[in-house]
Formats: sequence, C-alpha cells, structure tokens
Amino acid sequence: MAKAITNRSEDYSQWYIDIVKKAQLADNSAVRGCMVIKPYGFALWENMRDQLDTMFKETGHVNAYFPLFVPKSLFEAEEKNAEGFAKECAVVTHYRLKNNPDEAGKLMVDPEARLEEELVVRPTSEAIIWNTYRDWINSYRDLPLLINQWANVVRWEMRTRLFLRTAEFLWQEGHTAHATREEAIEETKRMQEVYATFAEEYMAMPVVRGVKSESERFAGADDTYTIEALMQDGKALQAGTSHFLGQNFAKAFEVKFLNENNQQEYVWATSWGVSTRLIGGLIMTHSDDAGLVLPPRLAPVQVVIVPIPKPVPEINEVAEKIMAELKAKGIRVEYDTDAKKRPGFKFAEHEMRGVPVRIGIGKRDLEKGVVEVARRDTKEKEQQPLGGVVEHVAQLLEDIQNNLYDRAVKFREEKTTSVDNFDDFKAVLEQEIPGFISAHWDGTAETEQKIKELTKATIRCIPNDAPEEDGVCVYSGKPSKRRVLFAKAY
Amino acid sequence: MAKAITNRSEDYSQWYIDIVKKAQLADNSAVRGCMVIKPYGFALWENMRDQLDTMFKETGHVNAYFPLFVPKSLFEAEEKNAEGFAKECAVVTHYRLKNNPDEAGKLMVDPEARLEEELVVRPTSEAIIWNTYRDWINSYRDLPLLINQWANVVRWEMRTRLFLRTAEFLWQEGHTAHATREEAIEETKRMQEVYATFAEEYMAMPVVRGVKSESERFAGADDTYTIEALMQDGKALQAGTSHFLGQNFAKAFEVKFLNENNQQEYVWATSWGVSTRLIGGLIMTHSDDAGLVLPPRLAPVQVVIVPIPKPVPEINEVAEKIMAELKAKGIRVEYDTDAKKRPGFKFAEHEMRGVPVRIGIGKRDLEKGVVEVARRDTKEKEQQPLGGVVEHVAQLLEDIQNNLYDRAVKFREEKTTSVDNFDDFKAVLEQEIPGFISAHWDGTAETEQKIKELTKATIRCIPNDAPEEDGVCVYSGKPSKRRVLFAKAY
Repeated sequence: MAKAITNRSEDYSQWYIDIVKKAQLADNSAVRGCMVIKPYGFALWENMRDQLDTMFKETGHVNAYFPLFVPKSLFEAEEKNAEGFAKECAVVTHYRLKNNPDEAGKLMVDPEARLEEELVVRPTSEAIIWNTYRDWINSYRDLPLLINQWANVVRWEMRTRLFLRTAEFLWQEGHTAHATREEAIEETKRMQEVYATFAEEYMAMPVVRGVKSESERFAGADDTYTIEALMQDGKALQAGTSHFLGQNFAKAFEVKFLNENNQQEYVWATSWGVSTRLIGGLIMTHSDDAGLVLPPRLAPVQVVIVPIPKPVPEINEVAEKIMAELKAKGIRVEYDTDAKKRPGFKFAEHEMRGVPVRIGIGKRDLEKGVVEVARRDTKEKEQQPLGGVVEHVAQLLEDIQNNLYDRAVKFREEKTTSVDNFDDFKAVLEQEIPGFISAHWDGTAETEQKIKELTKATIRCIPNDAPEEDGVCVYSGKPSKRRVLFAKAY
Repeated sequence: MAKAITNRSEDYSQWYIDIVKKAQLADNSAVRGCMVIKPYGFALWENMRDQLDTMFKETGHVNAYFPLFVPKSLFEAEEKNAEGFAKECAVVTHYRLKNNPDEAGKLMVDPEARLEEELVVRPTSEAIIWNTYRDWINSYRDLPLLINQWANVVRWEMRTRLFLRTAEFLWQEGHTAHATREEAIEETKRMQEVYATFAEEYMAMPVVRGVKSESERFAGADDTYTIEALMQDGKALQAGTSHFLGQNFAKAFEVKFLNENNQQEYVWATSWGVSTRLIGGLIMTHSDDAGLVLPPRLAPVQVVIVPIPKPVPEINEVAEKIMAELKAKGIRVEYDTDAKKRPGFKFAEHEMRGVPVRIGIGKRDLEKGVVEVARRDTKEKEQQPLGGVVEHVAQLLEDIQNNLYDRAVKFREEKTTSVDNFDDFKAVLEQEIPGFISAHWDGTAETEQKIKELTKATIRCIPNDAPEEDGVCVYSGKPSKRRVLFAKAY
C-alpha cells in the first residue's frame, strides 16, 4: 500500500490498473478475462446497485430471475442478436466429468455426457426472457410487463481490462413488454434518464444523453439510447444503454397479445442495462495520482478518523463521540485504531482508497479544542473547532460531491471541441487528451466506417439536445442537419 | 387463479407444484432443470436475502464476488470435493459459435474455438476461492478472512423440483480463513446458529441443529453442521449447512500463513451456505390447501386492503388513511383497486399468495364504524372498530408470526418418535406422515447404509443437544452412546 502508483501523465492504462489493485477493488483471477471483485470493490458496487434498484422500483419495475443458460435454438431465434453475440459465447457442451484413466487424480470431460443441445452462457437475456414472456402475456391486461434482473453475464472478449471489459461481469438488465410502440419508446427514454440521473447525481459523472448511430446499435434493437461519459484521458466511455427493440423479439418468439379490440398483435419491447463497467468510469472520472477518489454518496466509507499518533483513551473518547454523531446522521464512518501503523502511512492508505473525508485527532490539537479535517478531492486540510465538526463534515461531504461533479463538467466542456473540417478533426484527435468532437456527419455508415478506420474515433451518439443546424459532413462534405459527437472510446 | 389446487392429502407433490405455480413464485424454463423465479417469488427471496445479509454483516462478514467458472485443473485439486461434484458439472468447452454451413440461419459450435482447458460452471466455489486466498493471505495479520458471496451455482441434477432441487440455483456461500482450528470451528458453529436463528425467527420454521454423519458430510469437509426442518408430509429438509473444512483446501491450494512465532502454517477453513431451496422449506412448513401461507416478517405484502364490493370514494378515503398509517409503521401494504374482479375472487387470490392479513372495507360496515380483518394462518375473520385497526393489525402480524412458529413446533413434536427397535423404526416410516425418528445408532457407515437401503431413511443429524445416554443400535444391537435423528428427506 505504501508503494506509489504510476502517474497518469506517464502511463494512463497502468495508472488505472494500479488504482484498481492498490485500492483493493478487484484482481485478475485464474480464469482468463474474469475478475475477482474484492470486498472494498464489492461494497462500492453494492452501494451503486442498491441506489439503482431503488430507482428502478420507483419507476414501477420489479425484479425476477431467469436461467443462466440459453439453449442454442433459442439463442439463434432473433438473427441479428444471435449474430452480434455468437462470436463471443461461452458454450456448455457436457454435463459431467469423469476420472481420467490415464492420469490418477485427474478428471476429464465424460464424452458420454454430451448435451443433446448446447447451452450458451447468457451474454444477455433477451432470448431466454422473450421465450418466457410468450407464456406470460396473453392480453393487454398483462401489459406492461416491467421486469429487471440482477445477474452475471459472459462475453468472451479477447482483450480484457478490469471492470471495463471482462469476460464475466455483473449487471442488471431490464426487459419490458408493452402494448404500443409509443409506450415502449417512452420507457426506453425513461430508463436512459434514470441512468443519466444516477451517473450525475450519485457517481458525479456528467454524461451526454444521445442515440446511437445504426452501426453502433445493440444487436437486435431498432434504436439504442446511450449515456456517454468523458474520461480524464480524453476517451469516451459508454456508461449505460437503453434499447428500443421494436417487435423484433416478439416476432422471433411469437409473443402476441389480444388488444382491447380483440385483435392479436405483436408485443413491443425494450431492454436496458448497466454493469460493473460503471466502476471503471467512476475511477477514470475522479481519481488522481494519489489513488482513488470516490463521490461521497457511493463511497463505502465516507469519513475515516485517524488518531494521531495512536489510539489513546482521551482521543478514543472524542473519536467515538464524533463517530456516534456522524452515524446518527446516516454517515458511514470508520475509526482506524490500528496501533501498528504510523499516521502518515494511514493517510496515504485512506487516500489510496478514496475516503472522501479524513478527521485527524491529535492530543495537542484537542487541548486547543480543534481537530484536522482533510478532504480527498482537493487534498486541502484545515483545523476545525471540535464543537461544530460533525455539521462541518456533513456539509463537506455534500461540497465534495458537488465539486467532483462540477470539476468533471468543466473538464468535459474544455475537452469538447466543435470542428468543421477533417484536418481540425484529426488535429484534435492527435492531442494528448483528445476529448469529444462535435462535428457534422452525413448520416451514412460508409462515412462513419471510413472515419473510424482513419482516426479510430467513433460516433458516440447523436445528442438528444443537438439543435437542428445546417452544415456539411466533416469527412464527405455532404449536407448534414445536426452535429454528432465523436471520440475514441473504451 | 380461481382454479383450486390439489389437496395435500391427495397428492402432496402435486400440491407443492400447484402452490409454486398458482402463487406465481416460479416456473419451469426452456432449460432442463432450471427455473424462472417470478417477481413475487423473487420479492420473497429479496426479503430473505436482505435479512441474511444483515446478519452476516453483523457477524463481521463482507461480500465479494469470484468467477463463475472454475478451470478443471483447480476444480480437481481437492480430490474429495472434486469427486463429490464431478458427476453433476456443466462444462464449458468452447468459446464461440459460428454459422452452420448446412442450415441457413442456424448456428453451431465452432470446432476451432475449443478451450485449451475446460471450465466447470461452479457447483460451489471452494476451489476458485482458495486458489485466490493463496495470494491474499501471507501472515496472521491477514486473518481471519470473513467473506461471503451471493451467487448462482449449477449442479446437473437428474431429478429436479422447483426451488427444492434445480440445476441452477441462487445461494450465498461464506468462505472464511482462520489461523487456528478452534477459531474455525467456532465460526462454523456461529454460522449454523445464524442460520437457525434466521429459520426460526424469520421463516417461523423450527430446525434441529446438529452434525452430519461422515457419509452425509459435504465433499471435502471434516465436519458438516446442519439445520434440519420437518415438512408437513413428514419428510425432513436440510435447510442450511456450515462446514468445518480443516486444512483440506489450504493443503490442496498451498495456502500458508506466517504465524506469530514466524512459522509457516496451513490456514484453517470454513464454508457455509443456504439457497433458494429455503423457499421450498417455507412453503412446505406453513402452506395449506387454499394456497401459500407466509410468515409476516418475510411476506412481500403483509397486508392487503380490499374494497367491498368496489373502490368508491368513501372507501378509498378510509383505505388510503389506513395504508398511510400502516406504511408509517414500516408495514408492507397494498390496496387492491382492481374494479374488474369481485371481492370473493380477490379473497381467494390473496389467500393463494399467502398475504398474512386482509382488511375488507365495505360501505355498510363503515357506517357502523368497523372493517373486517381476516388472518391467513387460521382464516379467522372478525369485525374491528375502525379506530384501532392499525394497532390491531400491527399486533396481529406478530401474532401470526408466532402462531406459525408455534404450530410448526407442535407439529414437529408430534411427529418426532423415539424408537428402540427396528420393527418400531419401520412402523413409524410406514405411517402416512412419518416424521423424525430418534434412535440409537452404532456409529458405523455400514449400518447407516443398510438402514437407508431397507427404509430410505437417512441420518439427518446427530443433534447438538443430544444427551449422552446408553443404548443399543436400533439395527445392529451394538452399543451406542447417544440417539441420532433419522428421517426420509428431500
């Protein structure tokens, strides 16, 4: 823990890995591309999950659980979806191991226990869920169906990075069924807004709300709504998506309902998800060269109290009183009583873990009636009269939450460049921290592809609030009606 | 929903399935042996999970998450454990599908995407976790490690029953590491007691705390502590187990620590788990021929208000006032405003779903200043003055919780028979509702096996509180020092 981490300016990727490991968030595992989420990382995920779950329930959704496996014949039913995920599927082919006759104590797959039909480990659950919805939906009275599931999914990615892209990850996937196209689109947008609210108000991570271009859509969707965040290295992160699935899955799985006029109609669908990837976004939005920086609303520990230099009775007494008062305000607080570590070491440790506020209590300070309060975001320290420290800290947590958000908004504004020709476009991307590029695009997949080949930048989204504006495509020169957002992306 | 379910006396197994389906708890899926947990069933599981999670955290545990897959070479490292689970493993052998050249629109496993090493879908996570603990544990300062995980696991069972035995199920698995044998045993017992407390105080399901005989132990454990409940049909249900794993996994995965005397020692281990199987136990402990009966502490809806015959303004007003007051007391309440269903239909529906208390509000009753309060456990109804109804209902929920527990204890007492010879032993098992048999056993696996072959009864446990008592084995006539508990079991 005492060892420093790589500086961002030196090697951003290594800095990221260092943070994940030194802050004890996650680790690589013995399984290629799969991670172990360590207790501190999982506590952070629990806070995110619980808040999202509350927001889903407030918008009328309920949780359920569907099988981990998707039989191949269901998996392939919606062709675009199948095509999109077929190349990265873990496939179960056998249901038994047996002793290896050639090697004592070793096992082998039992060739006699081959499944009649292979099972795909879910990369996403539209197929298994829509196959189930066929039995659940008969009439308009059964609609809307507003279901969410918290689950693990597997996508056999070739290049993985802790949290950002792993073979197995944890996520939630909402799958809703509606009687009308309009209602389904409304739901798709509602969930985009829920995600955006969560990102901004809890993660303190500003996002652009927009719609994906056709080539960047979810496989099987008619439209994909997205929230896109900008990381400190000037690359974009797709942080959550909400898909309007039209009647594609209803048709693939023959899910019809009797409408109020007694006619059979196909059901309209949405799906939407966010994952442990958000933790990667959180890290890359706020953290610095001293370690993790966490927004107070999600931090597993919001305040840590450190006795200086040691936990002695007169300090313990004050610490416990402050702890009790903070807890009474619903603040998550820890008292670091480890007598084997020096205060300086502890300071570095809690900075590495991103604890938003540290209170240092020293004997000499106590005689003066003060304690030291340090904030993680700016690293400022100040002496605070003991009397008002609890109120001060409660307010400080809110200030930090707001400061992190404001800082990130400012960064994004500085790193969003409006360009009108391709030379400028390329010049922005050659900067050390490229950021978002707002530019006109002719709306064709060919141009999009060409720009990607030439610059590695992709269309992140067509922002919801992009005004209509006459212009010409930054690459082809053809006419365009609005700017879209480009960036290199994770 | 209006259709009645099979009576218990007629066909207990069918009654069970009817309840699970008609109360909308779960359904079979397109995947052999895997279930879909429906929203109402999942809401019940969420209440159970949240309470258990609180109890785990109160006893010092933290959550983490480990990979779904276990590489075969790790899986086989602890031989007994591997042997115990090898025959029921789902195995991933490939990581890609491709288009089937012989059938348009169909996919096939890509033979070129064969994994170098097969991956077992976790049936339990000791192997992957202890392989990780090797990196996390160096010195006694790293101990104890008290980690729990909420996860899905897969065991390829041949005969499955919703909740009770499914190929995939949800569970929690605690995996702890300790410096001493004594501390590990203490932890094993602590978690058995946590499970017993949860079963009794929340599920209202009395359990016998005991230790498994050697043949019934978890594969890889030195001792398995269990809680055993008695179902209404006189069969036992193993409801939770806590294993003392000795140093077996530490040795298999070379997990050592430097003790305070600077010597390397193998780490001591425990693991413990409960699963969605508990829902099966809950159903079979309390429910009746009218449907599900739920203990108030876990019921997703504790009180339902039904307007008689319809939701009209003067009834709505009273209902909303009662709702608000119940909610303020932390009671989960629903107002059934569906105008299309008649009250009688609704009553049956809420009985089927096991809602503990129903409040019926009719116009004529209101004129008299009363409402009708019905309790699900005894089906008693009574008129209650409107004034005190909220306090009455709050108390009634506690009464129902206690009554369910007391009723189940009484049933178990009536259905626990002490026998001293094998004829009596067999006679008890031939009864329609056999129950627990308390009998002397000579302590050998041979006798245990013989009794199982002859009667299908197994040793459920050696109760923790079994007094020392001289006797002779009910089968072999050899001397025995204490009685053990036999039963047919799920």
